[in-house]
Amino acid sequence: MPEEMIELTFPDGSKRGYKAGVTGAEVAASIGKRLAADAVAVKLDGRMLDLGRPLCRGGTFTVVTPRTRDGNLDKDALWCMRHTAEHVTTEALRRLWPETKLVYGPALEDGFYADIDLDYKISVGDFPKIEAEMAKIVAENKPLTRYELPREEGLKKLAAEGNPYKLENARHADADQPLSFYLTGTRPGQDFEDLCTGPHVPSAGRIGAFKLTAVAGAYFRGDEAQKQLQRIYGTAFPTQRDLDEYLARIEEAKKRDHRVIGKQMGLFTISPLVGQGLILWMPKGAIIRTELQNLMQSELLKRGYMPVFTPHIGSIELYRISGHFPYYKDSQYPTLKGEGREGEREEYLLRPMNCPHHIQIYAAEPHSYRDLPVRLAEFGTVYRYEQSGELNGMTRVRGLTQDDAHLFCTQEQVEQEFQSTVALVQDVFGVLGITDYRVQVSLRDPKSNKYTGEPKVWDKAEETLKRVARDMKIAHDEVPGEAAFYGPKLDFLVKDCLGREWQLGTVQLDYNLPERFKLEYIGADNVRHRPVMIHRAPFGSFERFVGILIEHFAGAFPLWLSPVQIRVANITDKQEEAARRVVTQLRAEGFRVEDDLGHGKINAKVAEAEAAKVPYLLVVGAREAEAGTVSVRGRGRKDLGVLPVAEFIARAKKEVADRK
Amino acid sequence: MPEEMIELTFPDGSKRGYKAGVTGAEVAASIGKRLAADAVAVKLDGRMLDLGRPLCRGGTFTVVTPRTRDGNLDKDALWCMRHTAEHVTTEALRRLWPETKLVYGPALEDGFYADIDLDYKISVGDFPKIEAEMAKIVAENKPLTRYELPREEGLKKLAAEGNPYKLENARHADADQPLSFYLTGTRPGQDFEDLCTGPHVPSAGRIGAFKLTAVAGAYFRGDEAQKQLQRIYGTAFPTQRDLDEYLARIEEAKKRDHRVIGKQMGLFTISPLVGQGLILWMPKGAIIRTELQNLMQSELLKRGYMPVFTPHIGSIELYRISGHFPYYKDSQYPTLKGEGREGEREEYLLRPMNCPHHIQIYAAEPHSYRDLPVRLAEFGTVYRYEQSGELNGMTRVRGLTQDDAHLFCTQEQVEQEFQSTVALVQDVFGVLGITDYRVQVSLRDPKSNKYTGEPKVWDKAEETLKRVARDMKIAHDEVPGEAAFYGPKLDFLVKDCLGREWQLGTVQLDYNLPERFKLEYIGADNVRHRPVMIHRAPFGSFERFVGILIEHFAGAFPLWLSPVQIRVANITDKQEEAARRVVTQLRAEGFRVEDDLGHGKINAKVAEAEAAKVPYLLVVGAREAEAGTVSVRGRGRKDLGVLPVAEFIARAKKEVADRK
Repeated sequence: MPEEMIELTFPDGSKRGYKAGVTGAEVAASIGKRLAADAVAVKLDGRMLDLGRPLCRGGTFTVVTPRTRDGNLDKDALWCMRHTAEHVTTEALRRLWPETKLVYGPALEDGFYADIDLDYKISVGDFPKIEAEMAKIVAENKPLTRYELPREEGLKKLAAEGNPYKLENARHADADQPLSFYLTGTRPGQDFEDLCTGPHVPSAGRIGAFKLTAVAGAYFRGDEAQKQLQRIYGTAFPTQRDLDEYLARIEEAKKRDHRVIGKQMGLFTISPLVGQGLILWMPKGAIIRTELQNLMQSELLKRGYMPVFTPHIGSIELYRISGHFPYYKDSQYPTLKGEGREGEREEYLLRPMNCPHHIQIYAAEPHSYRDLPVRLAEFGTVYRYEQSGELNGMTRVRGLTQDDAHLFCTQEQVEQEFQSTVALVQDVFGVLGITDYRVQVSLRDPKSNKYTGEPKVWDKAEETLKRVARDMKIAHDEVPGEAAFYGPKLDFLVKDCLGREWQLGTVQLDYNLPERFKLEYIGADNVRHRPVMIHRAPFGSFERFVGILIEHFAGAFPLWLSPVQIRVANITDKQEEAARRVVTQLRAEGFRVEDDLGHGKINAKVAEAEAAKVPYLLVVGAREAEAGTVSVRGRGRKDLGVLPVAEFIARAKKEVADRK
Repeated sequence: MPEEMIELTFPDGSKRGYKAGVTGAEVAASIGKRLAADAVAVKLDGRMLDLGRPLCRGGTFTVVTPRTRDGNLDKDALWCMRHTAEHVTTEALRRLWPETKLVYGPALEDGFYADIDLDYKISVGDFPKIEAEMAKIVAENKPLTRYELPREEGLKKLAAEGNPYKLENARHADADQPLSFYLTGTRPGQDFEDLCTGPHVPSAGRIGAFKLTAVAGAYFRGDEAQKQLQRIYGTAFPTQRDLDEYLARIEEAKKRDHRVIGKQMGLFTISPLVGQGLILWMPKGAIIRTELQNLMQSELLKRGYMPVFTPHIGSIELYRISGHFPYYKDSQYPTLKGEGREGEREEYLLRPMNCPHHIQIYAAEPHSYRDLPVRLAEFGTVYRYEQSGELNGMTRVRGLTQDDAHLFCTQEQVEQEFQSTVALVQDVFGVLGITDYRVQVSLRDPKSNKYTGEPKVWDKAEETLKRVARDMKIAHDEVPGEAAFYGPKLDFLVKDCLGREWQLGTVQLDYNLPERFKLEYIGADNVRHRPVMIHRAPFGSFERFVGILIEHFAGAFPLWLSPVQIRVANITDKQEEAARRVVTQLRAEGFRVEDDLGHGKINAKVAEAEAAKVPYLLVVGAREAEAGTVSVRGRGRKDLGVLPVAEFIARAKKEVADRK
């Protein structure tokens, strides 16, 4: 019998034959020594495998190393390393508390967790001891070895070990497959081992740096009827420097957390009595939103948009026509279903989108090609029933107010209008100093049937959109499967100062809703035509956008957006009158001003203004009171010298006007 | 046996004794000849009776005459006269179509209707013939005489007449009372008569002027399973002049109907797909609303209000605490009741009022007496499930956006804050030229249990409110039973140019919601106190207010409110360029401008601008193009002469700024 061969295709497209049963480690070694040393796992046709697994068939093949070619951390490598770190954590726990029962432990996007059953209650105070034990295990650098047992044999082994959790996990595993175990070491039955599907890095020593981060309660399979378990969170990175950078980023993100700053600064609140995920904009938050609305409104009016106002509910029939119902039922609030007092049966939906309402306004009057484009704009609040576990402050909500607009145009106008809406998004981002963003062309997934409309129409829309992106020379990625259900779109993904990416603005092309609602205009040829729709929202929603701005600025908003722009303080009671006059003067000029005219020491007043992130503190002492000047302190403890009040006003007005 | 006496108390407070059994007519005659001649009925303790009814007990007594002392039409007299006119109508129908079966016929606020069963289908074309017959009956001036039959005897009589409707009506009448009939004439069994509770004017000749107005279908007792009947509408007045004035007012109201003008001018639309009673503000309507919002917003900011934004739903628990649910369930949309995907059970209500949300914002932070008053303002949309039969364009809707605010203050601040909110309403009305209004002090109905809170607290609130009204020297009526469920209020009732009264602004005093939500502030004494709330909305809602403004101005809005402020037209093609430059110049100055630069004749352009109710039409002819001037035509075909463009701009800007 001739030896069986398999063919592997490498990332550069080259192919090479290997004997069946070759391991990933051997393939890596055949390519290069350095690669073999760096390798932590391999991927065959997208599936990650241990370095030591024999390969029995060919396919596309990659060696997974801790860093990608461009020096970034590799997600798959991190996943393996963290998975192994979880085994190291549980081994350390078992060494310290031998009665520890392992339950379940996956890798996460940012680290891992380990669920255990142990009567002793572990606290953060125990972490140094556990980490010291982990460090020993890593230093021992024992190999992680996979072995498989036939299902029945594996179940028998687990039953004998007396761990009901693992036995239950094994019972839930695929019945057609053998059970796999990972041994950390070389001596089965003596060294640490765990039921696990893998993969892992080849040995515990390949974990570069690790840290336990938190401990919390958990239930087996999420079932609250079961005994409460302990969940220990941790993370791991290739180097101590990577770990330190991550921890610093977390620390910085915590300081910038919009939920914390939002509460400190009185920007917004969420009340369980109103409902989860529903933002109440407090006066200071409402100021920020209003400034953003004003900016957007003035840009819209310049560009020929027409504001409208529409209700927040619509009949279920409206959404059946649009296709939002029942298709998107799962992400919508339950309907309002009732029998009127006059016996009529009616059913309404809290609107998930504004488009069907704007379509009704378009449809309320006949249109000629001469009226087009019709650009209807609304700061329209929509409601989506996101899962409560996914809600997060202002950035993941159930009620969101979009800076929404819908353009109805002729086929000939599509490119021009699409270009000008994209330019609007770019202009608005420019005003806000948002420069680090990328554009994603979101196309349909041709294999899915969740889209409405003919493939021919989709092809046309996608081609138009790609052409616009090319013509405008916008760098972009094309991502299938990310389109709206009615059409493809351009999404603006913005990077914040912590390097996190957020989807904000969106511009969408839609041939389908005009068809579903049978919209029309009379062309120059005196014949009825169907208009094309463009949906767009530069900010996306005010909730998410302001949430991100809070974190981006860490609450230190530019002057024009600051809820309180100026604080005025006196040094002694003798300057109270003079300081009060400055306050009046500033308010008359339209500034948002607070006074701090108490008996406190000026140093304390400076510190409080700093903590409140007020852009300017104007101090009035004896000299200033006499000269009609103010001593100006900028946020960040900047001494900007003494200025006549009028000059300060002129400078501050310019700063507001320039939206610096 | 001595003769029994009764004592009557007259409107001037004087009392007089009469023999029991005296008729209203005799009492009127005892007062004066003129009064006896004018009398159409009397009222004893508020109950209206025929002039001929014997009075068997004493009480407060009024003689009902067609006009009140101040010359206005008397509602009760109109009611009697129209009720009699209904009998005259059915008698005329029976004379013309003897097979006519009478069904039911009440007086209405504006007239009366008569439901009849008749196979011949009556049309408006038949009205002159019927009215001629009615005129004969009125000229015959036969008396209307009431007689009563014991219930069983009355039912037997009706059964014998073979009219199943009247028999059914009689069966529904109070079983303890005899049945009453009214005979028009003197010969029972021959002259016209009808089962009826009365009262009526003493004879058919007392109907001064009448007119049939419409015919429609109806069902017996509103039951659609029954045979369809015909309903004939009409009205009656003391004099032909009264009737003519009424008809002219109806005609004028039709011309001013905001539903008609709203459609013509493209101000708003209602789509059955969105839902009944839900207003979609089209671009031109949205301009009017935005101008009103801007006016209100600038007044609010001047007065220390703080805008907020809150969601349009709240958990059912929020409304159980506030008392809106389940008490006001009937006027609310059905709840959104669902099971989340994570199994949580949640129930929400589309909010009927903004107050509970604003309370949540107040409650989100601790407050000191130094922060108070806290004045939270929002153009907040609320939803109420009004009966579909009561909906009417923008003036009776299911979704309304209130210019709402809630003030939280100390007991000591109540009068000052209440006064300043009342002053705000007066100021805003002043800007809009609304001068004809009256104020109603709406108090609780002490007999009803629909109010929340202790009687003691209500007494305090009502006293405060009456004192404010007195102190501000506001002329007002006190009306029990019209308070909000949480407190008494001042309502502003505005008269429009047709003399119709509308409830607009409202200022409400509330000690109860702060109690129900346990709101607090720390007083100067360092102890927790409960704040007092003031609810207020000067316009009421933008929907209703704009609806009324449309009718008030008949679409001819003042310059600052006009959706299109200026139209520019050229006389010939040669001035197209010059006219276009004027358009650009005006738009740059912030005016809302349309152009009319087609090949049409200037006379047609003038007529079209007039029809569109545009405040200014600027005409550019050869002379104007050369001189850089425009020929200005004001709405209403006013020739305002030729002006340099800059001068027109300056004048128009002043007109907008003055909100004239």
